This record gives sequence, structure tokens and C-alpha cells, in this order.
Amino acid sequence: MKGTVGELGEFGLIRELTARISDAPAVRLGPGDDAAVVAAPDRRVVATTDILVEGRHFRRDWSTAYDVGRKAAAQNLADVAAMGASPTALLLGLVVPAELSATWPLELMDGIRDECRAAGAGVAGGDVVRGATITVSITALGDLRHREPVTRSGARPGDVVAVNGWLGWSAAGYAVLARGFRSPRAFVEAHRRPEPPYAAGPLAAELGATSMTDVSDGLLADLGHIARASHVRINLRSAALDVPAQMSDIGNAVGVDPLEWVLTGGEDHAIVATFPPHTKLPARWRRIGEVLPPTAPPAVTVDDALWDRAGGWDHFNTPEEAL
Amino acid sequence: MKGTVGELGEFGLIRELTARISDAPAVRLGPGDDAAVVAAPDRRVVATTDILVEGRHFRRDWSTAYDVGRKAAAQNLADVAAMGASPTALLLGLVVPAELSATWPLELMDGIRDECRAAGAGVAGGDVVRGATITVSITALGDLRHREPVTRSGARPGDVVAVNGWLGWSAAGYAVLARGFRSPRAFVEAHRRPEPPYAAGPLAAELGATSMTDVSDGLLADLGHIARASHVRINLRSAALDVPAQMSDIGNAVGVDPLEWVLTGGEDHAIVATFPPHTKLPARWRRIGEVLPPTAPPAVTVDDALWDRAGGWDHFNTPEEAL
Repeated sequence: MKGTVGELGEFGLIRELTARISDAPAVRLGPGDDAAVVAAPDRRVVATTDILVEGRHFRRDWSTAYDVGRKAAAQNLADVAAMGASPTALLLGLVVPAELSATWPLELMDGIRDECRAAGAGVAGGDVVRGATITVSITALGDLRHREPVTRSGARPGDVVAVNGWLGWSAAGYAVLARGFRSPRAFVEAHRRPEPPYAAGPLAAELGATSMTDVSDGLLADLGHIARASHVRINLRSAALDVPAQMSDIGNAVGVDPLEWVLTGGEDHAIVATFPPHTKLPARWRRIGEVLPPTAPPAVTVDDALWDRAGGWDHFNTPEEAL
Repeated sequence: MKGTVGELGEFGLIRELTARISDAPAVRLGPGDDAAVVAAPDRRVVATTDILVEGRHFRRDWSTAYDVGRKAAAQNLADVAAMGASPTALLLGLVVPAELSATWPLELMDGIRDECRAAGAGVAGGDVVRGATITVSITALGDLRHREPVTRSGARPGDVVAVNGWLGWSAAGYAVLARGFRSPRAFVEAHRRPEPPYAAGPLAAELGATSMTDVSDGLLADLGHIARASHVRINLRSAALDVPAQMSDIGNAVGVDPLEWVLTGGEDHAIVATFPPHTKLPARWRRIGEVLPPTAPPAVTVDDALWDRAGGWDHFNTPEEAL
């Protein structure tokens, strides 16, 4: 696609964006009418929204439009999965400057579509307007399949804490990029394009998870949400937290304890949940700690101590906090 | 609320925004978790999203934050109603500059909440981030109550065209404001705060409407969407289009044929629909035209002629076009 968004025109842009969407089973009526119609077989729909602004949530010199699309979709679809629901559909609100190359929003849509496909969802509709700053607003919907939603407030003393997915990889990749490097690729890729374990959310609900969230702000911060909502303390065992050798190498190179990335790095969208004590956890779930009776803050400890290194507790006040 | 958004902090802002939300029957799980849960008794959910940017879609010197909130919510909730669905819930994505007065987003939320209440819906969740330009992204959800969605594509030759709600009032109010005046108030108010006839959408579906849309881009433009999607021509009778005396006075004062506002003015969010010929229309539905076999473009005529005055056909290429 040659030329700018302004040259293509907004009608033309909408036509091109719509042409890139593929069918999805849950999308009964897609773009082109006043509203979309999405299947909600459970008679309830799970819904979440995030808004991303260029310069604050993504950088065009660090990530391709395709990767921004995948990541923006992933963070919303992971929120749906973290309720124990299966993602069904996504809606996109997009602000683009007239002088932006038309390929950018089209590749963004390709990324959104492919991430939706990975999660089993489809693009149901959206809105495109002109504005000075690229802004991507995504709303994701999901279906609970007749299970109760798994909230942040159900953890009970005695429960085990387990995680499924990557921890600290995006943060390590960010540390690499921030220093002007482009490798190791696995970590840079993890920062550009997280891979949330979508199926883990509904599976955990099926297994009787008592509380659940996705790790978007960092493991300590997100478990802090659970601990406060559930009125419990959570203690993590550092020996159970996997620090890959290559992550340690990056830590040595940039002078950061890699455990900090694992504990405080967000954006990998791992799924962390609490389970009744004797739950048999399937492959890829790692036990990383336990739920204890409440104490005065802090609500989350590591090896029974406060994690107080830089960054450890700053993420509570995050702009991505759900409304 | 004193101080700026930056002084209140984003965590504080979220707390204040959430405190302003009231319960709604369809919102089973509101803000504060990874995602909301909204009732969808029909087993399908109607969903639509719009994104509004300051300077392009609203002006802070013309509209209060409260009015921006009501209007932003109204345009999405009207889209839900125009499918024949009853609005159930709304999600908000909000970008605010740190230096913005904290009262602005709070009054915006009051407006969104009150418009939701008028439509029978509730605020289910959202996201707030900092950025240079105030941007309001809204996603509205609705329930079809076991009726099929009324799309734009079902109009048949012989059907009657009828409208419920206001036409041209917002455009007349805009003309007044653009010339620096603040009255007549009724029209200025109509521009600042549309009053879509939410109940008219589900009622039209119940009555067997064959196609329906809300008038967001202008009557001719929106009926053009129906005519093209349904492969028909639509002819309006100008004598049936109500031009209030006060609107004629404004037209005289500013040198505009007020029929142009009625035919091409958007943002009042009237509901326009086509019905089988002998449908008995209830109060507040006005017959304004008929559906005819297709012709070469233009697809919409007024008194069997092309409406070719300035503005008459420019709105097709609108930024608010659904994706």
C-alpha cells in the first residue's frame, strides 16, 4: 500500500482494514452496520478495554505496526482469559495522523487479526478517526462457557500459587532495546510480541482456581491485587522462579538482578492463579508460592521477606490499572 | 475536586472515576478486575465502538465535560438501539493530559453515567492513560431480547421510511455556536447533548422494521447506507420533513436553507427505519418517504430529485464511518 492515510482517505482506509479481517465463529455480524453481533452462549459476556498511546505504550522505532497490533490485542485477550473465559471477539478504535504511511494501520490490523486467531477470537468492528497521536483502543469480549468468572478476590490461606507462561522476558528485552541492542532475539521478540497462554485461563477455571489474573504490571504488583482483593498474604519462593541462564547473562551485562525482571517485569501476560492445596496441576503450571493469612502490608513477600529493590513496588500506581 | 490529573495521580483518578459509577442490572461484575462480566440473556451481544478526539469531535470551549460524556455515550448507545437491541453496558477508554483539571474527567464520567442511565445501561469498566490529547473511546454493548438484529440491508421496494427523534437540531445548534452565539438555547443544547430515542430501536424491531440505522452522519448519508446495503432507492418527501419555525428563523439569520440541516445534519441520533407498507406506526414515528426499486446512484432522492446543495453528499466520506 503506497501513500499516506490522508491520501488513501478514511473511507478507503476502512475498506482496506475491513478486507484484512477474517471470519471467526463467534462473530455473527461483522463490520459495516451500526454495531456488530457476537455470540455469547453463556448468557454473560466478559468485556475489557485498554487504550494505548504512541510514545507511552509503544514506539514505532522499536516495534513494527504488526507487533504493536499483536501486543495490543494480546493484552486485552489475556485479560479475558484471566477471568477464565475464552476470547470471542475484539473491537478496535484507532486514531491515525493523516501523514502516516497507510501501510502502518494495515499492518497493525494484520497483527490484531493474527493475535485474535491465536486466541480463537475474531475482529467484530471498530472506528477510525484522524488525530495527531497514534492511539489504539481495543475492547475484547469472551465467553465463560457456564463456569463462574475467576476474580481476584477468591484466594484463601492454604491455596497454592501457580503460574503459566513467561515471566520477565519482556522486561529483559526492554532492557536490551533501551541500551540500543537488538539481541538476544528471543528476549527482544518477547518484548515486541508477548505470547499469553490463552488456554491456561479457562483450564485453570476448570481446575477450580480460586483467584486469577494475568501478569501485565509485574508478578509482585499483580499478585498484590489478588492479595488485597482476597484479604490474604502471598509468599513466593524465589527458588521456584525460573531465571533462564540467558536472562542471567543479560542481567550481568546490564547490571540488573534478573530476578527483578521476573518479579516486577510486566507485559508478558503470563496467567497466575491460586488453587486449592491438593489440586493436580497440568504441565506448564509451576508452583511458585502459597497463600497465607493476611498481615499488614506488604501483602506479597518473597521468601517471607519484603522485596524492596528498585522497581519492586513502584508498579502499583500504573497507568494500565483497570478502571 | 481541586488540582490536576497529574496531582491526583492515575490511581487516585481511577478511584474517583469508579466511585461515580452506579450499579446497573446487566453489569454482573463491574470495574476492578481483569475484565467485567455483563449479562447477555439473548446468547448474543451487540457491540459497537467509537473514538473521539478533542478538537475534532468536541471542543472544551463549546461543551462541558459533562456534555461531552453524555454525547460520547449517546452516540454509541444509539448505535446499539439502531440494531433493535437494548443497551446493557459501556466501557470507557480515556486519554488525559497530566495538566488537565481533575474535574474534567470526573464530570465526563458523570455525563457518561447519566446517559447510560437514560438508556438503561451501566458503566462496566475502562482504562485511563496519560497522553497529550484528550481522547474518549467508548464501547457499548446491548441485548437483542430474542429478536433478530435489524441491519441496513433488509429494506424492500414498497416499504415506508419513518423516523423517530430529532433531525437537524444539532446542526442548527452548531451553526449558532460557530457564529459565536449561545442561543436559541434549545438548538445549542441539542448540539451539546443529543437525546436519542433509545426505546425506538427495540420497538421498531418488534414492529417488524426491515432495516434501521441511527442518524449520526445526516439523514441523506445514513439512508444512503441503507439504500446501498439493501440495493434499493429511497425517496423522501420534503413536505413530510418537519422544519420548526425557530429553525427557519436561524436559517434566515445565517443564510442557510434549514432543510439542509434536516437532510444533512448529523449527531442528533434519530432512529430511521423502513417498515412493511401497512405497518401501523406508533406515536412519534413520522413517515418521511418510501423505498423504491434501485436506480443508478444517487440512491437517495428528495421529491424524486437529487439533493445537490452544498453539504448534501459530502458526509459519505465521514471519519465516523463504522469499520
